Amino acid sequence: MTTEPTTPDKAPSEEIERPIRRPEVLSTCDEIVGACRVLGSDRATLGLVPTMGALHAGHLSLVDAAQAECDHTVVTVFVNPTQFGPKEDFSAYPRDLDADLVALGQHGVTLVFAPSTEEIYPEGFATYVENDGVASEWEGACRPGHFRGVTTVVAKLLNLVMPKVAYFGQKDYQQSLVIRRMVADLNMHPEIRVCPIVRESDGLALSSRNVYLSAEERLRALALSQSLRLAEQLVDDGEGDTAVIERRMRQLIESVGGVALEYIALADPYTLKSVSEIAGPTVAALAARVGSTRLIDNTILSGTLSDLEFS
Amino acid sequence: MTTEPTTPDKAPSEEIERPIRRPEVLSTCDEIVGACRVLGSDRATLGLVPTMGALHAGHLSLVDAAQAECDHTVVTVFVNPTQFGPKEDFSAYPRDLDADLVALGQHGVTLVFAPSTEEIYPEGFATYVENDGVASEWEGACRPGHFRGVTTVVAKLLNLVMPKVAYFGQKDYQQSLVIRRMVADLNMHPEIRVCPIVRESDGLALSSRNVYLSAEERLRALALSQSLRLAEQLVDDGEGDTAVIERRMRQLIESVGGVALEYIALADPYTLKSVSEIAGPTVAALAARVGSTRLIDNTILSGTLSDLEFS
Repeated sequence: MTTEPTTPDKAPSEEIERPIRRPEVLSTCDEIVGACRVLGSDRATLGLVPTMGALHAGHLSLVDAAQAECDHTVVTVFVNPTQFGPKEDFSAYPRDLDADLVALGQHGVTLVFAPSTEEIYPEGFATYVENDGVASEWEGACRPGHFRGVTTVVAKLLNLVMPKVAYFGQKDYQQSLVIRRMVADLNMHPEIRVCPIVRESDGLALSSRNVYLSAEERLRALALSQSLRLAEQLVDDGEGDTAVIERRMRQLIESVGGVALEYIALADPYTLKSVSEIAGPTVAALAARVGSTRLIDNTILSGTLSDLEFS
Repeated sequence: MTTEPTTPDKAPSEEIERPIRRPEVLSTCDEIVGACRVLGSDRATLGLVPTMGALHAGHLSLVDAAQAECDHTVVTVFVNPTQFGPKEDFSAYPRDLDADLVALGQHGVTLVFAPSTEEIYPEGFATYVENDGVASEWEGACRPGHFRGVTTVVAKLLNLVMPKVAYFGQKDYQQSLVIRRMVADLNMHPEIRVCPIVRESDGLALSSRNVYLSAEERLRALALSQSLRLAEQLVDDGEGDTAVIERRMRQLIESVGGVALEYIALADPYTLKSVSEIAGPTVAALAARVGSTRLIDNTILSGTLSDLEFS
């Protein structure tokens, strides 16, 4: 009887689910500092992937990059209230820690920091990190106080984990620039890596906020990435006048309809100041509302992210 | 002949000057990071004493505290422009690095960081650390932007040196509170020690700015410490009404004349909010101009600095 073949509804042995180890979840600052000290002893390297949860393949590409480069990966899951404006979607922001932990376990992550708001901002908290340069443009102009919240929480997470490398997505290009500036300006030690945007097969940049989109809005939202592809195509075809490129992008977006542009910019990738012609790597970025959902996207024209050198 | 006594103008051998080792002076961020990494290997502890130079016995008491507690002491000498207002004494602030190095050598310091302004604030610098709580009171109200400059440069120096302990003087009581708050809020690792005020024998708190005072102004300046001594005496005698204590302090200062009070406060030592009665340790602090020189001083009423517990 023991030699009988397995029944059809039982998976062959090589496909029997390997037990996915659920990551250890710590919730206090003292715990994560202690755990990271232990992990980092004997010169082991730590990679940090700071997230607000609601993980998608974009986040997981950062995790994979950290796993490939560092001895241990620490993922933080914290929906940071200080980077949301008073009328923004802090309360509605998608949260699903259980699903996040399953995904992180599948990607081999063993340590997650998921603190409460009170743990990160205890009573009496009063110190903020802010950038009064590139943070004033684009997202900073549309979302006053947003980057102050970002730099403050990232400074805290970097200090708690003390990673060798921290990973951010190019999707938030301006954020990555503000964080690089912070680390350099404040003489912090981690290296900052910026990883490419992960897109759906139809071009939509992955975002935790995509779940807000209705089926019809999701179709309209493709205008964002399509306008960036158009800009790339125009540059490939030799167009160097950014006013022409921007006009064509706007025309494409307006032709789709139902997409309310907040800004569209072709700019120096270090200063975010607008440029009038494509004379080297140039960042094209835009933000728009589709229905009530605010989306952002960007691309590097006349180059790639890896062409950019940051101090 | 070799048994002859030494001539009177030759010092006895035990008083022959020991060669004072001049500290090594580093001026770039990369150099100090590298040197501190070497010093801190093998779990050796580093103490940091951040100064603006023009060292006096107050600074040197911080050095001695660091030397007693840590394996190595790093002293930074940097007149930080971002903590001076546009009409303040940044240009006139006393600078004498050679004399500072002699004093530090005499106190056994072997490593000094004395960077240029451009090294600390290179082109494109745009990230600041700021406190919007206790930094808004007292000095923050009189000197807009002052504490933003202090927290920013101290964050940088802490990150560069990565000390186990950093030492500050109680003379700048509010500053020490703002820095403790920053370290706690941003999850920085150094411990912060606050050391007692060092005074001249007549009570004047040591300050690098005392050199600005004429002989007559210096006499008038004694009103500051005398008013604090009066407050201590009143509390010792059982006076608990802060309005009474403050009035008596003002009367003493006005009776001396030539001292222009900027503020005088009796406050909670953690929040710096004014208190109406002495119900526990209370900070009495004041700022005044004597001639064109701005002086500050403080004391802890109904307790001492060591009675205060900071997270």
